[in-house]
Amino acid sequence: MMKVAVIGASGRMGQAVLQELIAQGHECAAAIVSEQSSQLGQALDDPRLAGRHYSSGRELEPGSVDVMIDFSLPQALSHNLALAQHLGAPIVVCTTGLADADQDTLAQASQSLPVLYAANTSVGIALMEQLVTLASAGFADADIEILEAHHAAKRDAPSGTALVLGEAAATGRGTTLAQSTAGIRGDGPRQAGSIGFAVLRAADIVGEHSVYLAQTGERIELTHRIRDRQVFARGAVQAAQWLAGQPAGRYKMRDMLDTKALLQRLLHEI
Amino acid sequence: MMKVAVIGASGRMGQAVLQELIAQGHECAAAIVSEQSSQLGQALDDPRLAGRHYSSGRELEPGSVDVMIDFSLPQALSHNLALAQHLGAPIVVCTTGLADADQDTLAQASQSLPVLYAANTSVGIALMEQLVTLASAGFADADIEILEAHHAAKRDAPSGTALVLGEAAATGRGTTLAQSTAGIRGDGPRQAGSIGFAVLRAADIVGEHSVYLAQTGERIELTHRIRDRQVFARGAVQAAQWLAGQPAGRYKMRDMLDTKALLQRLLHEI
Amino acid sequence: MMKVAVIGASGRMGQAVLQELIAQGHECAAAIVSEQSSQLGQALDDPRLAGRHYSSGRELEPGSVDVMIDFSLPQALSHNLALAQHLGAPIVVCTTGLADADQDTLAQASQSLPVLYAANTSVGIALMEQLVTLASAGFADADIEILEAHHAAKRDAPSGTALVLGEAAATGRGTTLAQSTAGIRGDGPRQAGSIGFAVLRAADIVGEHSVYLAQTGERIELTHRIRDRQVFARGAVQAAQWLAGQPAGRYKMRDMLDTKALLQRLLHEI
Amino acid sequence: MMKVAVIGASGRMGQAVLQELIAQGHECAAAIVSEQSSQLGQALDDPRLAGRHYSSGRELEPGSVDVMIDFSLPQALSHNLALAQHLGAPIVVCTTGLADADQDTLAQASQSLPVLYAANTSVGIALMEQLVTLASAGFADADIEILEAHHAAKRDAPSGTALVLGEAAATGRGTTLAQSTAGIRGDGPRQAGSIGFAVLRAADIVGEHSVYLAQTGERIELTHRIRDRQVFARGAVQAAQWLAGQPAGRYKMRDMLDTKALLQRLLHEI
Repeated sequence: MMKVAVIGASGRMGQAVLQELIAQGHECAAAIVSEQSSQLGQALDDPRLAGRHYSSGRELEPGSVDVMIDFSLPQALSHNLALAQHLGAPIVVCTTGLADADQDTLAQASQSLPVLYAANTSVGIALMEQLVTLASAGFADADIEILEAHHAAKRDAPSGTALVLGEAAATGRGTTLAQSTAGIRGDGPRQAGSIGFAVLRAADIVGEHSVYLAQTGERIELTHRIRDRQVFARGAVQAAQWLAGQPAGRYKMRDMLDTKALLQRLLHEI
Repeated sequence: MMKVAVIGASGRMGQAVLQELIAQGHECAAAIVSEQSSQLGQALDDPRLAGRHYSSGRELEPGSVDVMIDFSLPQALSHNLALAQHLGAPIVVCTTGLADADQDTLAQASQSLPVLYAANTSVGIALMEQLVTLASAGFADADIEILEAHHAAKRDAPSGTALVLGEAAATGRGTTLAQSTAGIRGDGPRQAGSIGFAVLRAADIVGEHSVYLAQTGERIELTHRIRDRQVFARGAVQAAQWLAGQPAGRYKMRDMLDTKALLQRLLHEI
Repeated sequence: MMKVAVIGASGRMGQAVLQELIAQGHECAAAIVSEQSSQLGQALDDPRLAGRHYSSGRELEPGSVDVMIDFSLPQALSHNLALAQHLGAPIVVCTTGLADADQDTLAQASQSLPVLYAANTSVGIALMEQLVTLASAGFADADIEILEAHHAAKRDAPSGTALVLGEAAATGRGTTLAQSTAGIRGDGPRQAGSIGFAVLRAADIVGEHSVYLAQTGERIELTHRIRDRQVFARGAVQAAQWLAGQPAGRYKMRDMLDTKALLQRLLHEI
Repeated sequence: MMKVAVIGASGRMGQAVLQELIAQGHECAAAIVSEQSSQLGQALDDPRLAGRHYSSGRELEPGSVDVMIDFSLPQALSHNLALAQHLGAPIVVCTTGLADADQDTLAQASQSLPVLYAANTSVGIALMEQLVTLASAGFADADIEILEAHHAAKRDAPSGTALVLGEAAATGRGTTLAQSTAGIRGDGPRQAGSIGFAVLRAADIVGEHSVYLAQTGERIELTHRIRDRQVFARGAVQAAQWLAGQPAGRYKMRDMLDTKALLQRLLHEI
């Protein structure tokens, strides 16, 4: 049982994290919203959280929180990290759309705190990164293409997660995505070594990513499908639980998978 | 057993048609190449066609050919149709990249000859057109997206066949692709009613097309995969066999499927 | 706005239908449970249905209900149909596991009432049936195989819906599933004309069905995926709305799609 | 350029290997068939191998062969290994249907010769084994199911390759397939930890394998598709080339991928 403070608690993902905490028997130490939020001071909806109100987090004292989960906005990042440092609480940052400067802010905070940053908190995607790197290294001559499908309202393309998988593919070839991306595939023949993207947008698709590795006569397809947004909340809570036991430092979802130990084990077994 | 003249006989698809004729026990009435071809007068490779040579088709006499299959180039279209008219032979035109003016040329020839034009001679694709129209009509609120995958060297995108399937989808909605296409899907939210395309290019993929119809919580995917280019040759020979029994007129692959009779039957059975 | 009585209201699907009624602005005329249910007389959970209680339906008077939706159990079928007849209300029966005798009961009730029976109320599956029949008729020589995936706890296999799609495939060939089924595919070579099934069971997959039609060198795959069980509730409410305007008789989900009109339209357009 | 002796040279795969040798500029040291074969002494078909005849291999002298590729039958295994030992030639054994005793025979021969045994010589499948082990280890709570599709005439099910992938999945869980297999999935609920199989048989599908790893709300699918049987010949020749440089010992396709070095590299990069 952890005492977890949720930042951005009134948003869709914040609500999902609250549900997940209840389901897993953790305590909601605080449901934090911004000072400007119209929800500030309002009671939480769920009857199982009766008596709890949305707060700014100012009332919290050091030691009262085991770990924080942040599903708020990039502009609140410094404020949230300062709060985490004040409380001495490890923090899982799940904000999307961070700028380069925000990465520096994360790096600084991680000198005194365990900080895990993930734009996609699905455990499956963390694993996909490893699989894609292994596949692109092992199938060294294969052409690599990445397909992603999301709901109709999504504005950016390719998805941030598709780019992460593209980077993982480039790593397997000893290069970077910046050096090999072909962007969203249009007309014209394919350049050898390029990594192309394809995009589908329809209805309420939560998120699907496929990486194709094709060489003459055969191909491998690695696909990840999310059926239910709750997967992101579950992954964030799982990451929080793991992070609470780590020393100060900067982490990714895949550190939680302990892929290194896993790969060490594979080295002996295969 | 038909006597078939193959135009563009020295090309990859022409060769595939010759193989198909042999396999099915038809006679190769002529293996036609252009007057400028370096193959003109050369012997055919296959020992089962021993003694046969590539010709310009000038030696042929009316009545000596049951049907022609044209896998040559757009610029030879008028010449080829004139030859078909001289011989009184129905003609299956499988040339890709025809201009609008070429469609007029086809229309004119079809007044005196059975002419079937197909940019894709796979029987499965002709059926896909019907399926896509039925699906888009029956799933009237679904978002429609089309994915196609081809070999790395293909220059145009989306493929001609993807556009044909897009047209079939628009037909089911009582509109045209021109009025609803979103082109290859990039960033920005999706417009309701738009039909988007996505493109993969890798290795030696012969041709795969998927039409996604998604509405809240559920979706239908219609996929066609070609494993072997010989499918196009087989479809062309099947079309030729069917066309040889038709009156003058302009035909498509799907006329051969006799979808109207099929739909009539369905009307009674379901 | 319809007044809808929901039978089996305390079950998972009954609850989903109540949610759907609220979301669409319909009135819940009664939330019916069996006389033996421990829920009988209890208040409904949702605050938007405040003041409403689970009832046996005995309190309802003829004319007070526009349409009924039954997600209860086969053994309650006669009781439920009698209630519908007493109320003069069309009824959508969504019970699974009906015996042959139950079909007779449905037939009898449909002489005086509009009765729609559907073991799967997804609109997409109703459309899939049509697509599968058209595909199997049009691709007359293709081998047909059906794959279904469901959650780990599902007991029966192949799923009822897979069998319905198998029947639709057999219809396209002018035969019945009973005459052509190969059951779940095991070892040994495939008999021509047989329809085989394959089964996946994992985690919380709601329901996915694929029909493969393969012939030499090419194939068509028709796939339906449900992401969210709410699809079944939505389909049931849509069916209820349609059924409320029909004369007495026996109906299926696909009657609602009005496939005959759709096919008539296709006959003129293609 | 290698001098390669092909055993089982008159069979479908033997012929494919001969084609691959020609394409890659290797020399066919011998096209070996059994002493009882009606092909013995006949000339090879391909004009590029003019003057060559099918032989028993008796005429070969030690040092005249760099490596052997065996696509013959299990009952000829001892005979073939004895020939390889006589010639001092490393041997790639691609025979399917070996008994346990045959594995002992292979083990013994590998004490003095490099011996690589592979029931599936596709390079992609060797890579799939690694990917499946990594995925099943990383997604430790996921349900695992394996789907395979092959041509209509295939007799055994699940395919040998599906079983190899099942073993790779079990390895990732620290167990064996024998302890966790559920066989071909039928009815009844799924046991936790079981690995189920599903089978499709249709037309001329060369070979497709998918491994599904599903946990609540998300899943990973690893799929390998072979479009062209020539992939097996190419993989066998690639394995032969690699094996020619190895010391005596027993090898698998994945040793050629050098997965250990690859995993070592990943350990430092991720």
